[in-house]
Amino acid sequence: MAKKKVAIVLGSKSDIAIAEKAETILREFGVDYATHIISAHRNPNKTRNFAADLDKNGVGIIIAIAGLSAHLPGVLASLTVVPVIGVPVGCGPLCGQDALYSIVQMPPGIPVATVGIDNGGNAALLAVEMLAIADESLVEKIKKYRKQFKDDEK
Amino acid sequence: MAKKKVAIVLGSKSDIAIAEKAETILREFGVDYATHIISAHRNPNKTRNFAADLDKNGVGIIIAIAGLSAHLPGVLASLTVVPVIGVPVGCGPLCGQDALYSIVQMPPGIPVATVGIDNGGNAALLAVEMLAIADESLVEKIKKYRKQFKDDEK
Amino acid sequence: MAKKKVAIVLGSKSDIAIAEKAETILREFGVDYATHIISAHRNPNKTRNFAADLDKNGVGIIIAIAGLSAHLPGVLASLTVVPVIGVPVGCGPLCGQDALYSIVQMPPGIPVATVGIDNGGNAALLAVEMLAIADESLVEKIKKYRKQFKDDEK
Amino acid sequence: MAKKKVAIVLGSKSDIAIAEKAETILREFGVDYATHIISAHRNPNKTRNFAADLDKNGVGIIIAIAGLSAHLPGVLASLTVVPVIGVPVGCGPLCGQDALYSIVQMPPGIPVATVGIDNGGNAALLAVEMLAIADESLVEKIKKYRKQFKDDEK
Amino acid sequence: MAKKKVAIVLGSKSDIAIAEKAETILREFGVDYATHIISAHRNPNKTRNFAADLDKNGVGIIIAIAGLSAHLPGVLASLTVVPVIGVPVGCGPLCGQDALYSIVQMPPGIPVATVGIDNGGNAALLAVEMLAIADESLVEKIKKYRKQFKDDEK
Amino acid sequence: MAKKKVAIVLGSKSDIAIAEKAETILREFGVDYATHIISAHRNPNKTRNFAADLDKNGVGIIIAIAGLSAHLPGVLASLTVVPVIGVPVGCGPLCGQDALYSIVQMPPGIPVATVGIDNGGNAALLAVEMLAIADESLVEKIKKYRKQFKDDEK
Amino acid sequence: MAKKKVAIVLGSKSDIAIAEKAETILREFGVDYATHIISAHRNPNKTRNFAADLDKNGVGIIIAIAGLSAHLPGVLASLTVVPVIGVPVGCGPLCGQDALYSIVQMPPGIPVATVGIDNGGNAALLAVEMLAIADESLVEKIKKYRKQFKDDEK
Amino acid sequence: MAKKKVAIVLGSKSDIAIAEKAETILREFGVDYATHIISAHRNPNKTRNFAADLDKNGVGIIIAIAGLSAHLPGVLASLTVVPVIGVPVGCGPLCGQDALYSIVQMPPGIPVATVGIDNGGNAALLAVEMLAIADESLVEKIKKYRKQFKDDEK
Repeated sequence: MAKKKVAIVLGSKSDIAIAEKAETILREFGVDYATHIISAHRNPNKTRNFAADLDKNGVGIIIAIAGLSAHLPGVLASLTVVPVIGVPVGCGPLCGQDALYSIVQMPPGIPVATVGIDNGGNAALLAVEMLAIADESLVEKIKKYRKQFKDDEK
Repeated sequence: MAKKKVAIVLGSKSDIAIAEKAETILREFGVDYATHIISAHRNPNKTRNFAADLDKNGVGIIIAIAGLSAHLPGVLASLTVVPVIGVPVGCGPLCGQDALYSIVQMPPGIPVATVGIDNGGNAALLAVEMLAIADESLVEKIKKYRKQFKDDEK
Repeated sequence: MAKKKVAIVLGSKSDIAIAEKAETILREFGVDYATHIISAHRNPNKTRNFAADLDKNGVGIIIAIAGLSAHLPGVLASLTVVPVIGVPVGCGPLCGQDALYSIVQMPPGIPVATVGIDNGGNAALLAVEMLAIADESLVEKIKKYRKQFKDDEK
Repeated sequence: MAKKKVAIVLGSKSDIAIAEKAETILREFGVDYATHIISAHRNPNKTRNFAADLDKNGVGIIIAIAGLSAHLPGVLASLTVVPVIGVPVGCGPLCGQDALYSIVQMPPGIPVATVGIDNGGNAALLAVEMLAIADESLVEKIKKYRKQFKDDEK
Repeated sequence: MAKKKVAIVLGSKSDIAIAEKAETILREFGVDYATHIISAHRNPNKTRNFAADLDKNGVGIIIAIAGLSAHLPGVLASLTVVPVIGVPVGCGPLCGQDALYSIVQMPPGIPVATVGIDNGGNAALLAVEMLAIADESLVEKIKKYRKQFKDDEK
Repeated sequence: MAKKKVAIVLGSKSDIAIAEKAETILREFGVDYATHIISAHRNPNKTRNFAADLDKNGVGIIIAIAGLSAHLPGVLASLTVVPVIGVPVGCGPLCGQDALYSIVQMPPGIPVATVGIDNGGNAALLAVEMLAIADESLVEKIKKYRKQFKDDEK
Repeated sequence: MAKKKVAIVLGSKSDIAIAEKAETILREFGVDYATHIISAHRNPNKTRNFAADLDKNGVGIIIAIAGLSAHLPGVLASLTVVPVIGVPVGCGPLCGQDALYSIVQMPPGIPVATVGIDNGGNAALLAVEMLAIADESLVEKIKKYRKQFKDDEK
Repeated sequence: MAKKKVAIVLGSKSDIAIAEKAETILREFGVDYATHIISAHRNPNKTRNFAADLDKNGVGIIIAIAGLSAHLPGVLASLTVVPVIGVPVGCGPLCGQDALYSIVQMPPGIPVATVGIDNGGNAALLAVEMLAIADESLVEKIKKYRKQFKDDEK
C-alpha cells in the first residue's frame, strides 16, 4: 500500500503561518503533504470536490485550520471518512474561543481531532502519530524527535 | 409572485420543542412553513439536496435550529442565497454558548441572522418581519400582535 | 411599491469603520441607505423620532451597530416593526462579549437579527438577502457576488 | 420636602420573587415603594409614561429587575435622572451572565448601579443607603439592621 | 445639614486615570471630593481608619476603584453605612472580568453599586444622582448635563 | 503486523458511562480494546507502568477520559508515542470547561486529539478512523456506519 | 514548640458540607482544628478579633471557605501572616467562577493558596503538607495516605 | 533540622520573568532556592528524577510555573508530598484562563496551592509563610515586610 499523504486545508489565506508550522514538522518526518486554501462557507463546491478526490490523491489525513465559526474541519469530516485534525485559529475579538468550541463540540457520529489554538505544529505531530500506527519507521522517528527536544532542554 | 414559505430545519429530533415555538408563531401569522430534520454533519447530501430544491419549493427564508458545534445554519447559508435565521440550542454542558459562537461568528461573505439561545419564537417573528418588508398586510398583523401583548401586560 | 431603504445606525462615532464596511456592500448592490449616529441611552428622544419617521422615509431594514451594553438594536426593534440587524462592537475590555449577549439575548416578542462581532459587511449582506426575498434582480446580484469571491479564491 | 419613594420595576412577571426580596427590606426600613411590571421592549410607551410620571409620583429611586438582554434598567436610566439600581436575573441558559453584562456595561453618561445576580435584597438596601444620605433616621436604622445580623450570627 | 462629600478611593496608584475621570465630573457638578490611595489588603488599618473618619469628614458617598480580586469596594461597604460605588479595573490578563465578579457579587446584606469596567465617569454621575435625591439644584444640573451631550451629538 | 488494540483509560470510576459509549462503538467495528481505571495524579506509577507496557500489549491508540484538571490524556501522551484521544468530562461546577482547556491546550511537541465534552462515542469513531488509515476493511465499515445513520434519519 | 492548629472559617453556614470534608481529613491526620462561621462583610469586627487571636490560640494555618464575591480568604490574609488556604464555593448562578476569581487573583503582597471549587478535602491535605514541612511524622502519614488510595484503586 | 529550600520549576524558558519575581522575594527573606526548567510533558523522566531527589536536596516546597494546559504543578504534586505552589502563566490566546483551570481544579487527594495568574511574587511570599509556620524568625521578617509596604504607601 502506498504511503498516505496529509492534506493541509486553510479556511483563509491569513492563517498561513499556522499551516507553515505544520508543514515544517511534516517535512522533518518525511511525510508527504499538500496545502490548500478552501473556505467551506464561501466555496462549498470546491470543498466538496476536494473531499471527493481525497482517495484518488492518496490522502489519509486532513489537517483543517479555521477561525471564527470555523466550520471547515467539521464540514470536511462529514464529507470523508479519513481522520480530520482541527486547528482553531486565535483570531478575532474572541481570541479563538469561538473556533475552539465550534471545532471540538461535534455531534455524535462525526468526530474532529482538535488540537490547541493556533497549534499547527501539534496538528502535524498528531498526523505523524496516526500514520505511525502502521509504520514502524515513523515510530522510530517520533522517538528520536522526542529525545531531541529533551536534549535541547538540557 | 407567489407568497414565499419558511423552511424550519432541525439538526436533531431532540430540538423539536424549539421548532414548535416557531411553528406556533408562523401559523398565527398565516405564513406557510414546512419542518425538516436534517443533520448537516451526518447527512451532507440530504442537506445539499434540501438547499437545491428551495427555489422549486418556494422557500424564501430558512430557520435553522442546532446545538453543540451547530454548523447547520452556516452550512445552509453557504448553499443558498435566501436569508438563514440561526437558533442556537442551549443543550449540552456548555448550555448553548458553543452553538451561539458557532452560529453567529460567520466569516465575511456568508451571514446568519442569529437569535437568542432556544428562542424559536423570535426566529419566527424575525421571519415574519422579513416577509413583511414587501407585504403590507403582514406589517398590519405584526402591529396587531405587538399591541396584543402590550394589552396582555395590563 | 417603492424600493425600501436601509438605515444604518451607530451608537457612537467611534464605530464608523464598521458602518463603512456595511455601506460599501450596500453600494455594491445598489441598495439605498442612510447612516445616522444616535445613542439610544444618551438621546432617547432622537431614537424615538428616528423610529417614528422610518415609514415616511421608506426605510425597510435597520442595521444597528453598538458596543458595551449595546441596547441600541433592541430599543429600535421595540419601537418599529421592520427587521433590525444588530452588529456587536468588539470594543472595551470584554472585547464585544458584552455587546453580543446584550444584542442576541432579546426576550420573546422582539427579535434582533444578530451577526458576528464587528462584522458590518455581513450585516449589509443580510439586509440585501432580506430585500431579495421579493426582488428577483437582487437574487441574481447575490449569486454573482458569491460567484465572484469563489473566483477570487482560485 | 416629602419623603421620596422607591419604584420597583420588573421586566417580567416571572421575576416576582426577586422583587419580593426587595419589598421585604423596604418595608422593614419603612420606605414607601410601589411595584410595576413593565417590559422595556414589549411596551416602550408604558416604559416612557412610567418615566415621565416619576416626579409627580414622588419617586426618588428606581430598582429595575431584568433577565436575558436586560435593557430595562438602562432604558429607564436614559429616560430619568433619578438613580437606577439594576438587578440582573439569573434565568436562561447563560445563568444571568448576559443580564449582568447588559446592565453593568452602560456607556459613558448614563450609569446604572448594578448589584449581584438575583440579589433583590441588596438592591433594596442600596436604595435605603441612598435615601439615608439625607435622612439621619435611616442611617440609624441601617446601623441597627447591621448590628442585628451580626447578633444573629452568634 | 452641610453638603455631603464624595470620597474617591483607589486600591493602587496605577488606577489614577480612572479616578481622574470621576474627579472631572464631580468638579463639573460642583460636588466636593477628596481622593485617597488605600489598599484594602496591604493596609487594612488605614482602610479601617478611613472608614471610621467618614462621618467626621462629612463623606456621604464612596467611589472605590479596584482591579484583580478587587476587595476594596466590598470591604469599605462592610465598614460603613454610606453607599459604596465600585469601579472594576480592566487590568491584568482577565481584563477586569475578575474585578467585576468580585465587586458585584456581594453577599446579602452588604451591597456595592457596581458600574462598568474602567468607567470612573459613570461612578461620579451615579454619585451626583444619589446626592440629587435630596438636592433639587443638582437635579437641574443633571438635566442640563444630559441636554448638553444630546446637543453635542447633533 | 497484528491488529492494534485501543486502550480506554478513565481517571475515575465515575466516568464509566462515557467509556461505555466508546466500548459500544469499538465492539460494533470489531476493534479490540481494554478498559482501565488509572488516576494520573493519585497513581503516577501505575500510569507509568501502563504506558511502558503499551507496546507489549499491542496497543496502538489510547482513549483517555478525564474531568476537572484532567491531566491524564496529556500525561499519557508524554509517556508514549501512540496517538492519545482525550475526552473532557463535563462534571463539576465548571461543566467540563476546565477539562476541555486542560486537555486541548497542550504545549508544542505533545499533541492530544481532543473530542467534545462527554463524547466517548466520537472518541471511539476517531480511533476507528485512525486504524482505518492502513486498514481498508475498516474504511468500508465506517462508510456502512455513516450510511446507516443517514438511513435512520429518514 | 507546640503543634500548630488549623482554623477552618466559613463565610456562611450553608457551606458546612465543604468544611466537613476538610475536618474529616484533618482528623484522619491527627491535626487539631476548630471551625468558625464568620462573614467578612457582615461582621468585620468579629473577623478582626478572630485574626488578632490566632497567635494566642496556636493557629498556624487558616482554611477559608467562601462563595460569590468571596472576600473572606483575602481579608483574613491581609490581617494575619499565617498561610491562608482559600476554597471557592460553587454556589449561585455563576457556579463558583466568581469566587474562584475573587480568591485567586490577589494583588501582589498578600497571597491566598487557592484550591479547587468546593474542594474542602484538598484544602485540608494542603494544610497537612504545610505542617509536614517541619514535622517528619506527618510526612510519613501523607505517604501512607497516598499509598492507601492507590491500593483502593486496584 | 536543616532549613528547607524552595525549588522553582518552570515549564518553559519563556516564563523566566515570573520566576525572577519569585527569586527576588526569596532572596529578600533569606530563603534558599534553586531554579529549574523542566517540561512535564516533553521531559517526563527529568520531571520524575527531579521529584525523586527533592528530599536529598533538602527541598521543602516547590513553586511550579506553567502556561496553557499547565500540567507541571499537578504532575509534581502527584510525585511528591511537599506542598506545590502553582503559578498559571497568562500566555497564549486564552490569557491564562486555561492554565488557571488546569492548575487549580485538581482532583481530590492531590492539592496544588494556586496563586494569581503571572503572580510569581505571591508564590514566593506564600512559600515564605509556609516555612514560617515553624520558623519564628521568618514570621518577624514577614511582619516587617508587610509594615514596609504600608509605609511605602504613605
